[in-house]
Amino acid sequence: MDDKLMLMIPGPTPVPEQVLSAMAKHPIGHRSGDFGKIVAEVTQNLKWLHQTQNDVLILAASGTGAMEAGIINFLSPGDRVLVGTNGKFGERWAEVTDAYGLQTERLSVDWGKPLDPEAFRQRLESDTDKQIKAVIVTHSETSTGVINDLKTISSYVKAHGALMMADTVTSLGATSVPVDEWSLDVVASGSQKGYMIPPGLGFVAVSAKAWEAYKTAKLPRYYLDLGKYRKSSAKDTTPFTPAINLFYAMQAALRMMKAEGLENIFARHERLRQAARAAVKALNMPLYAADECGSPAITAVMPNGVDAEQIRSVMRKRFDIALAGGQDHLKGKIFRIGHLGFVSDRDLLTAIAALEATLQELGYDSFTPGAGIAAAAKVISNS
Amino acid sequence: MDDKLMLMIPGPTPVPEQVLSAMAKHPIGHRSGDFGKIVAEVTQNLKWLHQTQNDVLILAASGTGAMEAGIINFLSPGDRVLVGTNGKFGERWAEVTDAYGLQTERLSVDWGKPLDPEAFRQRLESDTDKQIKAVIVTHSETSTGVINDLKTISSYVKAHGALMMADTVTSLGATSVPVDEWSLDVVASGSQKGYMIPPGLGFVAVSAKAWEAYKTAKLPRYYLDLGKYRKSSAKDTTPFTPAINLFYAMQAALRMMKAEGLENIFARHERLRQAARAAVKALNMPLYAADECGSPAITAVMPNGVDAEQIRSVMRKRFDIALAGGQDHLKGKIFRIGHLGFVSDRDLLTAIAALEATLQELGYDSFTPGAGIAAAAKVISNS
Repeated sequence: MDDKLMLMIPGPTPVPEQVLSAMAKHPIGHRSGDFGKIVAEVTQNLKWLHQTQNDVLILAASGTGAMEAGIINFLSPGDRVLVGTNGKFGERWAEVTDAYGLQTERLSVDWGKPLDPEAFRQRLESDTDKQIKAVIVTHSETSTGVINDLKTISSYVKAHGALMMADTVTSLGATSVPVDEWSLDVVASGSQKGYMIPPGLGFVAVSAKAWEAYKTAKLPRYYLDLGKYRKSSAKDTTPFTPAINLFYAMQAALRMMKAEGLENIFARHERLRQAARAAVKALNMPLYAADECGSPAITAVMPNGVDAEQIRSVMRKRFDIALAGGQDHLKGKIFRIGHLGFVSDRDLLTAIAALEATLQELGYDSFTPGAGIAAAAKVISNS
Repeated sequence: MDDKLMLMIPGPTPVPEQVLSAMAKHPIGHRSGDFGKIVAEVTQNLKWLHQTQNDVLILAASGTGAMEAGIINFLSPGDRVLVGTNGKFGERWAEVTDAYGLQTERLSVDWGKPLDPEAFRQRLESDTDKQIKAVIVTHSETSTGVINDLKTISSYVKAHGALMMADTVTSLGATSVPVDEWSLDVVASGSQKGYMIPPGLGFVAVSAKAWEAYKTAKLPRYYLDLGKYRKSSAKDTTPFTPAINLFYAMQAALRMMKAEGLENIFARHERLRQAARAAVKALNMPLYAADECGSPAITAVMPNGVDAEQIRSVMRKRFDIALAGGQDHLKGKIFRIGHLGFVSDRDLLTAIAALEATLQELGYDSFTPGAGIAAAAKVISNS
């Protein structure tokens, strides 16, 4: 049906009506006092969500733009960086460091597996002359539904002294990312994920240690020069024209998040994660990531006996539910259920119910009809 | 009064209700066929507005981000660039080229004066060994309300062989910028201007000659790498998550522009320009830019006998009309009336009427009450 689309993809995520309404207001001048108040409130609430006293800067850019800014502002040509890669986004940050002439050293594991913190510890301990200037880790690897152990890796990076740079695009707002407690120096994310607003804003949290590195960092930048954003942010403004209406949206969304409370937000996502995984198991379909490293934001499924793209197609056409497919070499092999941001228990039950109907339509009979919903409902009712 | 704000600044410009409504729709997946259709339509209509067959690429970025992309994708470290500077934005592009280690050569005139095409001709003719790789010109200098003679300068650049890079942020959609006819290689603009939508999208048109330079250009970039956008654009998509809801807005705004027609849009802006200038003259206030180089998008006024900031303040507080102030050393010395985008004859009459009332309130008596409106109405009724 027209106008019935339900997003269960890892971004863009569903947007609340009050956020859409806020966004539809007429723009005001971005150099006005009224807009300054919005910048101040949004910035303050972003710090709350990041659990940090660090600067949190707002760019008119996607999450990739924000992450690139987070990398290039604190390094110089030839600097060695250690990049954890176990999916498309880890690979992307290595492409960024390559593009800027940094010495990229990949610490890779297979897609679908979590990065090995022990490998980071060993590599960092062996770097006695401190050649490694930064370590880049994707917290929630959107392409595979794996969450990496950022906390442990960051503790090793802190002991070493390099900068810890984290892509938290699909983890912030879905799970706790205590930036100060974990000593994360650079933390990048994008608006169309846990923040519950449409894409177009990128966020970068920057520690005092990173600002120290900024002073001598020599990679070229202008639009992505975070020093300019910091200077402007101190005056509740932005160096370049901000995406004004997305600020309206962000203001509304962050107010909703504050009303829900951090603990409740994280508990909701954990419940959705467990319910999704329990349901998929009950449907006898293999989960692509193991339980220990399943992301609270995305559940990737590698169906056997039925085609992943066919499942997505029927879900879309018959039930107006958008699921994500696999990326790169996983195209056609997995499908991904996004459950981050403005997603409720009801939404997850809906998606599982439709998935059961889809599987029946496709003749997949390796499950007891109703088993998926029974398993999801059990998780939800017990939480 | 609350909710009565009227924007007469050079960006953000007023946004039509149907554009705001379009923007308030739920986002859809940006990798879907439905979104691909929107990308295709918007791209096609952008080419129409640019009067070009060249690629027109869409970034989630401000106009500055788009312009930086336009510069850095086609040059290598140490390349010499000639930058015309006669205002804040010309200066900004020189800052960008400096930031990237290019050899920046400024061709400057005083703020408020137009760039001298003859100076470009002479400098380019003297560059017999073709050291100059690119020439950067701001078409409509938003900070001063001056429109530069891009057409003539571009003809000299073409004869020389360098790349012609133009900032058309406040000219595109306000006056004719025939990209192909003028041989403009790189043309950058932003959504919150003539396009009638909120800020957050940047546009770059790129010629075949620029793509040829791209092949050997070595400045680092990733998020702003236009090659990625070109490749994706050919498949009606974007390399990074697009600002989906701003695409909805853009789709609606471009449909409105097509319905109005290029000639009518340009005639309307020319009429607004003439009416604004006639009114200001009738109020016996000096125009900051001469008639020959007054921008169709912005009219800058340097009042004497009354304080520019006081005028802005009364206009804002008593009449809910936002005017722009001066930037950098012009702060407090000029005010600027934006009349680009979704601005009608009625809006201009409103602004002039309120300006007259403001001047009376401030005790400025160097004009005959009603003279401003009389002059503006004469222009409008004769057009």
